[in-house]
Amino acid sequence: MPKIVDHAARRTEIVHGLWLVIYTRGIDAVTFRSVAEAAGISIGRVQHYFPSREGLILEGCRQLVAGAELEEVEVNEDGADPADPIAALSEFLHAFIPEGEAMRVGASVWFTYIAKAVGDSSIAEVIVDTDRRTEEAAVRRVERVLTQASRSGPADHSARSVAEEAAECAVRLVALAKGLAQEVMLEVRTPETAYGILDAEIEHLGEAAARN
Amino acid sequence: MPKIVDHAARRTEIVHGLWLVIYTRGIDAVTFRSVAEAAGISIGRVQHYFPSREGLILEGCRQLVAGAELEEVEVNEDGADPADPIAALSEFLHAFIPEGEAMRVGASVWFTYIAKAVGDSSIAEVIVDTDRRTEEAAVRRVERVLTQASRSGPADHSARSVAEEAAECAVRLVALAKGLAQEVMLEVRTPETAYGILDAEIEHLGEAAARN
Repeated sequence: MPKIVDHAARRTEIVHGLWLVIYTRGIDAVTFRSVAEAAGISIGRVQHYFPSREGLILEGCRQLVAGAELEEVEVNEDGADPADPIAALSEFLHAFIPEGEAMRVGASVWFTYIAKAVGDSSIAEVIVDTDRRTEEAAVRRVERVLTQASRSGPADHSARSVAEEAAECAVRLVALAKGLAQEVMLEVRTPETAYGILDAEIEHLGEAAARN
Repeated sequence: MPKIVDHAARRTEIVHGLWLVIYTRGIDAVTFRSVAEAAGISIGRVQHYFPSREGLILEGCRQLVAGAELEEVEVNEDGADPADPIAALSEFLHAFIPEGEAMRVGASVWFTYIAKAVGDSSIAEVIVDTDRRTEEAAVRRVERVLTQASRSGPADHSARSVAEEAAECAVRLVALAKGLAQEVMLEVRTPETAYGILDAEIEHLGEAAARN
């Protein structure tokens, strides 16, 4: 009987080693050897799964993004509209905030990638692509909040369409969440304060829409 | 006659070499040798001005902060209240946005420091200290906007004091500016769009205060 190997688990094991190297020593310290040592495996195994160093670094960026997007996929899986759009938007924005030591380390690795993206077009591509999808996901959620709020308000139509307003609000909310994430990562602000600021903005959103 | 040496210029020359190493290879690639090569000077001269590698890295962080704070000092130097508080707040927040290649590279170095701060308490200290002073400076500017706006509005006093509201608004505006700075650095958004979003928020601030 052939030995059963969980290739996905092995790749993940290597990526965890990669993140540890990036966190402790930066992206430029990434070599097959340093990642193998951090993961406690042989250099040969790292090279078997990732023939190129650049490919490994990019995979680490993609997996960091994929982890952050998991929740998003689960929410939309069945195509069902969540019963409470405000709660859905709140949950989405809260996910930006790094809570606890492990998430702070993950955020630090993410910031290292962001800094590196300025001079590295392949990393920039992955991050810009993620940013675009994040924004689209935010717009969808804001639209649901605005649609529900305007239904419960007076029937009067404002000059601006819901889609336009949702696009603007989403950009603002996502940028705010990113800025707060940075402050929470540095422990300048607690996760709870950040959640509070985001939720106040969401509440304001619903109120403003109900007035239109 | 003794040779006249501009020590400040020499320190700046070394710090510029340091930033170049951080930008191209990360903080962990910083050694006396790599910085000397980047600055085009001898290793001995680097060590003369910065006896420790850690001291050099911290000085690079401080000078990055000092450059960003220069404008702030100039504005407050004579203690004069600016004639237009909205313009003053707008200028303050616009300064977060990296415009042009040189500022994007500076922002990348700054993000490298931020990422590193999670595991390095001396870097964290410099950044957290800067964050605190930035927030205080933002609160002062928002207070002036709110005070002016409430003067021009009805005399009715709201339940919340201007100071409380200014503190909350300042935190929100600074976080928004940081998030937008990240997106502009990655060229996901243009500086002009970021300025527009910030100015819309400032305008909204004045209007809301006038209603109170």
